[in-house]
Amino acid sequence: MEVTRSNFLQLLPSIKEAIAKCDFIVIDCELTGLNTVNNINAFDTQKQYYEKVRRNSKDFLIIQYGLCMFRYDVDKKVYKQQGYNFYIFQTGANKFVPDHRFLCQSSSLDFLSGSGFDFNKLFKEGISYLNSNEEEKCRASLSDAQKVRANKLHNNSFTPEKCNQAINDEDKELVNNIFNEIRDFIASDKEEHVLPKCNAYIRRLVYQQAEAKLANKASLETRALENRDHVLVVTRLKSKEDREAMNRKVVEREEEQLRQSIGFASVIKAIVESVRFPIFF
Amino acid sequence: MEVTRSNFLQLLPSIKEAIAKCDFIVIDCELTGLNTVNNINAFDTQKQYYEKVRRNSKDFLIIQYGLCMFRYDVDKKVYKQQGYNFYIFQTGANKFVPDHRFLCQSSSLDFLSGSGFDFNKLFKEGISYLNSNEEEKCRASLSDAQKVRANKLHNNSFTPEKCNQAINDEDKELVNNIFNEIRDFIASDKEEHVLPKCNAYIRRLVYQQAEAKLANKASLETRALENRDHVLVVTRLKSKEDREAMNRKVVEREEEQLRQSIGFASVIKAIVESVRFPIFF
Repeated sequence: MEVTRSNFLQLLPSIKEAIAKCDFIVIDCELTGLNTVNNINAFDTQKQYYEKVRRNSKDFLIIQYGLCMFRYDVDKKVYKQQGYNFYIFQTGANKFVPDHRFLCQSSSLDFLSGSGFDFNKLFKEGISYLNSNEEEKCRASLSDAQKVRANKLHNNSFTPEKCNQAINDEDKELVNNIFNEIRDFIASDKEEHVLPKCNAYIRRLVYQQAEAKLANKASLETRALENRDHVLVVTRLKSKEDREAMNRKVVEREEEQLRQSIGFASVIKAIVESVRFPIFF
Repeated sequence: MEVTRSNFLQLLPSIKEAIAKCDFIVIDCELTGLNTVNNINAFDTQKQYYEKVRRNSKDFLIIQYGLCMFRYDVDKKVYKQQGYNFYIFQTGANKFVPDHRFLCQSSSLDFLSGSGFDFNKLFKEGISYLNSNEEEKCRASLSDAQKVRANKLHNNSFTPEKCNQAINDEDKELVNNIFNEIRDFIASDKEEHVLPKCNAYIRRLVYQQAEAKLANKASLETRALENRDHVLVVTRLKSKEDREAMNRKVVEREEEQLRQSIGFASVIKAIVESVRFPIFF
């Protein structure tokens, strides 16, 4: 079965169950390249052979991971199999995913393309992943950011960032227009309002004046859209409780984003945790 | 206009004409990545800035080349433009194209994918290219191979390669079956026969016995198919003239293959040759 970003979380429980219950697993990978291993010889042990191939493949990327779990059916005396084919790719769609550089080899891409590999699906629908180091770093930085925010909330300050940037006339007009829009929103009965798209610099200028100009009537938040644009969202604030509830929502969203970024790594973890059988290379 | 491997040769004359006649050209490229240039500063000259960006991009690949030729229409007093968008990729589909390793950057591929860039089209339909060094090497090795073949033809020997490989029983049967099929072909009235697909090692074993077994009644040739498989083709030989004519066909095919491999480089050459205007970066 083909697994992409769209159906991964839905299929994950049954994949983990199949891993936990199987007798053995067969793994196959597609890579962006494969250096010819010149130093392999007939006297290499399996371990030496594996190490050499591994060393030569390290700069390339695994882009498809085939996993097949086999389980012996005692009654029918046959092996039953459950197979999955994962498109995997680390996208920069959220702040947790590192922006990797990796090698490709023309002939490998040519071979994959000739075999019908769908590169558009890979880059659009590939499942993200973080290795354990990356995951640890992300958890630490997220935890720090959440503590800073909780502290600000406790001290009645909701501005995500304090800065004091000089502002030119042209930008001043832009920022004033945004605050006029925010004032209209406050005067309305809407709960939330998405501000017109503006760049990171303008967003910073808006944040810089938010605390003084909004007087705890509304809260600002930067939100990443599906199309990778970033927009400012202004939300009505009624009480400290409301702000705390909103912060909890943000924390939930961040945790969900981190879970999605870890993505395919949970399959690898499930395999590692379930190892009750020898590993053959 | 979109240019791929399918319509490149057909469009090339009009592209060259547009380059030769234009007043100025605008160029834009899509790359597989772009290292952030930390060492650029406001005091860099244009040349220094260009050199820094160039150095940082060298390990990445240009995968799309946008070219727009502008020409001033004196009567209408307007600029007219002729634009082309080339998908370019060096494929290993023939022996002239080197098997390059190149860098990619996740966020760049993510950006391109989000902007609708068609990676499947790139790898399947990308136009090949050779830089001048690669072209020179290819021409030299092709010329050597053609001389060796012409010499063999002159000495009445048509076996492309001489070798003396020991052969095991299993392979012997396979090779015998192939020669039985060749004998049937010689007894038939067909001019040419494509042998069943076999790997490079078996092809080598067949070549090794061809001269002795075919006794100048047929000639063998390895041909690359569209799907990248390689097959042996056996062709009836009637006379030395026929063989010379066949060799001329092979030479033509090789030259055509080289022309196709040079591909997009002819556009760059046309630009370089037509430089009558300053180049701005």
